[in-house]
Amino acid sequence: MKMEKVVGERFRERPADCVIDSHALMVRGGYMKYVGNGIYSQFGPLRRICRKIEGIIREEMDRIEGQEVQFPVAMPASLWEESGRYESVGSELLRFTDRNGSKMVLGMTHEEASVQLVREYGKSYAKYPFMIYQIQTKFRDEARPRAGLIRVREFTMKDAYSFHTSQEDLEEYYQKCYHAYERIFARAGIPETIAVASDSGMMGGSLSHEFMLLTPVGEDSIAVCPECGFRANVEMAESITENVQDDVQKELELVYTPDMHTIEDVCGYLDMPKERSCKAVVYQKNSDDGFVVLFIRGDLDVNETKVTNFLKSEIRPAEITQESGLHPGFIGPFGLKGDFTVLYDNSLKSGMNLSCGGNIEEHHYTGLCMERDCPGAEYHDLAKITEGSVCPKCGRHSIRVSRGIEVGNIFQLGTKYTESMGMQYLDKDGKEKYPLMGCYGIGIGRLAASVCEAHHDEYGPIWPMAIAPWQVHLCCVRPDNKEVKEFADKLYEELQGRGVEVLYDDRKVSAGVMFSDADLMGVPIRVIASPRNMKEGCCEIVTRDKQVQKKIVLTDVVSEIMKMILCADKE
Amino acid sequence: MKMEKVVGERFRERPADCVIDSHALMVRGGYMKYVGNGIYSQFGPLRRICRKIEGIIREEMDRIEGQEVQFPVAMPASLWEESGRYESVGSELLRFTDRNGSKMVLGMTHEEASVQLVREYGKSYAKYPFMIYQIQTKFRDEARPRAGLIRVREFTMKDAYSFHTSQEDLEEYYQKCYHAYERIFARAGIPETIAVASDSGMMGGSLSHEFMLLTPVGEDSIAVCPECGFRANVEMAESITENVQDDVQKELELVYTPDMHTIEDVCGYLDMPKERSCKAVVYQKNSDDGFVVLFIRGDLDVNETKVTNFLKSEIRPAEITQESGLHPGFIGPFGLKGDFTVLYDNSLKSGMNLSCGGNIEEHHYTGLCMERDCPGAEYHDLAKITEGSVCPKCGRHSIRVSRGIEVGNIFQLGTKYTESMGMQYLDKDGKEKYPLMGCYGIGIGRLAASVCEAHHDEYGPIWPMAIAPWQVHLCCVRPDNKEVKEFADKLYEELQGRGVEVLYDDRKVSAGVMFSDADLMGVPIRVIASPRNMKEGCCEIVTRDKQVQKKIVLTDVVSEIMKMILCADKE
Repeated sequence: MKMEKVVGERFRERPADCVIDSHALMVRGGYMKYVGNGIYSQFGPLRRICRKIEGIIREEMDRIEGQEVQFPVAMPASLWEESGRYESVGSELLRFTDRNGSKMVLGMTHEEASVQLVREYGKSYAKYPFMIYQIQTKFRDEARPRAGLIRVREFTMKDAYSFHTSQEDLEEYYQKCYHAYERIFARAGIPETIAVASDSGMMGGSLSHEFMLLTPVGEDSIAVCPECGFRANVEMAESITENVQDDVQKELELVYTPDMHTIEDVCGYLDMPKERSCKAVVYQKNSDDGFVVLFIRGDLDVNETKVTNFLKSEIRPAEITQESGLHPGFIGPFGLKGDFTVLYDNSLKSGMNLSCGGNIEEHHYTGLCMERDCPGAEYHDLAKITEGSVCPKCGRHSIRVSRGIEVGNIFQLGTKYTESMGMQYLDKDGKEKYPLMGCYGIGIGRLAASVCEAHHDEYGPIWPMAIAPWQVHLCCVRPDNKEVKEFADKLYEELQGRGVEVLYDDRKVSAGVMFSDADLMGVPIRVIASPRNMKEGCCEIVTRDKQVQKKIVLTDVVSEIMKMILCADKE
Repeated sequence: MKMEKVVGERFRERPADCVIDSHALMVRGGYMKYVGNGIYSQFGPLRRICRKIEGIIREEMDRIEGQEVQFPVAMPASLWEESGRYESVGSELLRFTDRNGSKMVLGMTHEEASVQLVREYGKSYAKYPFMIYQIQTKFRDEARPRAGLIRVREFTMKDAYSFHTSQEDLEEYYQKCYHAYERIFARAGIPETIAVASDSGMMGGSLSHEFMLLTPVGEDSIAVCPECGFRANVEMAESITENVQDDVQKELELVYTPDMHTIEDVCGYLDMPKERSCKAVVYQKNSDDGFVVLFIRGDLDVNETKVTNFLKSEIRPAEITQESGLHPGFIGPFGLKGDFTVLYDNSLKSGMNLSCGGNIEEHHYTGLCMERDCPGAEYHDLAKITEGSVCPKCGRHSIRVSRGIEVGNIFQLGTKYTESMGMQYLDKDGKEKYPLMGCYGIGIGRLAASVCEAHHDEYGPIWPMAIAPWQVHLCCVRPDNKEVKEFADKLYEELQGRGVEVLYDDRKVSAGVMFSDADLMGVPIRVIASPRNMKEGCCEIVTRDKQVQKKIVLTDVVSEIMKMILCADKE
């Protein structure tokens, strides 16, 4: 394809609204265009990248016996009512009514649709196991779309659903899919992706993994133990803490703490470390607006995902009213009265001689001993694991927290959807049973952006050969020079004849413009024909990652390029 | 792929709710499943067919310099407000609000999105012409989905948009696309598709063509003149009529016509042919609910598309109230009083001595002479062309009306969208101008269904090689016979090794079940290995269309199949 024909604008300047490099470079390079909040159109080069990613995914899904199908984007709400998610999922699920007033949803995931498709097919054990997948548009009405293609509202996703007659079979297939995902990410150019245990969220089910590309700009936090290899999303990693045990239990003492609303204020005033305080955090449940008062050790943060899962309701920071009886800044577990759900984090278990709110304006207690003063308390894991925390696997104080982009996820769903939607099969023993399900997702655009995030320099993306929009970028510097132009034209034809995807730049622009545009296109192999090279009887070949830069005599150019493509494909 | 692994149910019985064969066969064969009104999921075989169709379309679009891009399915309403279509398009356009209350639409077509994508790119004449296309999900909230994939609410469509700096250039490209469409339909297996002039409808623009597959089950009516080759959708074909001219103008005479509400009643009673009567048809405009009284010759029908275009408003049959002053069954042009839009069809021009309503209950006039009695009337082409009508091109009474399925359409849009959305380019002469657009659509699923409609027998679809879900259907009859099974297994491996797509049926079922399932899968080449054949040292090869049925010695089977595939691909 001729460079001058590529539809899309390129910019020199980094757009002000781009917070991460991949977003900035993909806007600057004419890959994508903003249409609305979290909604983008794709120009040709990005479409080419995404189609190649889709091709890799198809191959790997077919390799594990997947069958490509297609579900609808717009679905009757009744499907989601069957599973119960029409009610339970928040406003990310876009609900609307059609011209006849029928309730509908835009598919953000397709567990319901997959069960609906195979509910009758899967009536005998002999049909199992099987896996169906699609590559299709999804809409998730995100509250805060950000970072270009990393968090959007509309996106293309490969989502797969497997069906099994036993937990063993599900687990075996889950492993197969796990390895298929490793191959997909490696082939797409990010072998450094790691799998971490994750929270199953609104999907339900018991076990799930996220595939993470570690990068400081990622929006997920991952707890990793370099000692034992433990890896988990911070959202679900168990927080383990130890409390100092004093020899003597002090008495509870009410202390006047005027104008001290934060843990820092109070601990500073009392000259106690934060881990010797009991902090209150107040939420409201989205389900019934009820107040939730959560007590946690002062140095720790609440893991809201754990709280949500525990309460089986979404939560939000509370709007504390006077009538609630709560005194913000002075809330403590001793003598707290009112109609609240009260939760205690594990970190307070066996806590001694702590400070806490006095439940009176401008007063705190010291000497709080949990066992003595809150005898009925039940403790749960509700805190966020942090840098230096105890590893839940090996017990050392070794946890490191990294940032990552989730490029894929896999879930063991169990019978959550088959039970709720009444899908049964007749087993060998003549009994009706519910099949078990797994589901497996990869966002195509997010994967493209992640590869860009992992492989770029300040001038543009460095696309791996397997997903690059073109394989070779042919630069004809000074196309007004007859000899150069004739050579470049011939090379363009010859490479295309051999099935090579060539982006051919024969525009009458300076070498500087040509090369900076080429950097933005990120094509792995660049071939430069110029008057100076021509005089030396050669061409220059430069790889986009600047690792290779060599002059090749004209007669060898084609074979050299073919060799380089072959090598790259093998990697 | 093994037949026993194909996910999907097959049925012997024709489903009661299927009105056309392609729908019935594609449900019976496990190609698709009903999800909701006009919404279907696709099983693997249909997905394979659609992907092949998409591949053919991509090749042909790339061949005319198209670049594949992608627009969003869900778009901000503001885009459609810019073009004015947010207001002008009816309830087929699905409007909704997102979680933040922002107005959005589901894309039913993407003229607005295409202009938004290239508005900045196309600022210089040097960038033109260019064409962008996508293959993407669309949603059209049809009032009456029907006939399986022929008229659905959600569908996948290839839609292309071209941009030009002159009408000549647009026309030249339009011709290119016209021929690309002919190639696409021929390659997909329906070379008999014909192009007909069509109404541009809500797209706007001057010239458009629909590509029609003629079939009695089609929902469009097409006027064809076998004499001169004239072809047009009945919706837009000009209706030409001639009126008998009597020597004498009779006087208007009010006649008592009790209980006669229809043209048939009145003409029978007065003993006059229907073409000597003036019929009234009453509509209401959707835009302002105003009444529209349309007069037309009694033997003709109103073409509501023409009326809609003339009024620039959708219309509906009127609900005539007492207050309107209209007397249903007795409405005539003479002495009609009230606040109506009154329209006259061309067929009444120079009409003489006609009967018509008397605008009094139970009375009609005779002797109506249009020029004398309705001196101010303006006449427009508002009637439907019918079988035997005058051909608007050659003037003979030769029109035949056929039914057809619209499998594609192409439009010359002119500057309708570029003007309304403010897309301009700087021309060579230094002036800002609006580019001209063309747009070009093909529905993938509808095309698949149309091919099935064109090529099937009572037992199943007969898929052409180019879009068949598999190329070869290998039937291993009696897999319990070791010799047969070993041969079939080896053939399966060998064909796959050569890149042939094989559906392999080695289930322990009767030959009858195996063959009837194979008929439903519609794979073009069927290879039968059975104990009887094996004894004769040969295999049977049968084509799905029953044109070929031959025995081939075992050693020649692979080469024979390869030859047959090659020949089919060349067709």
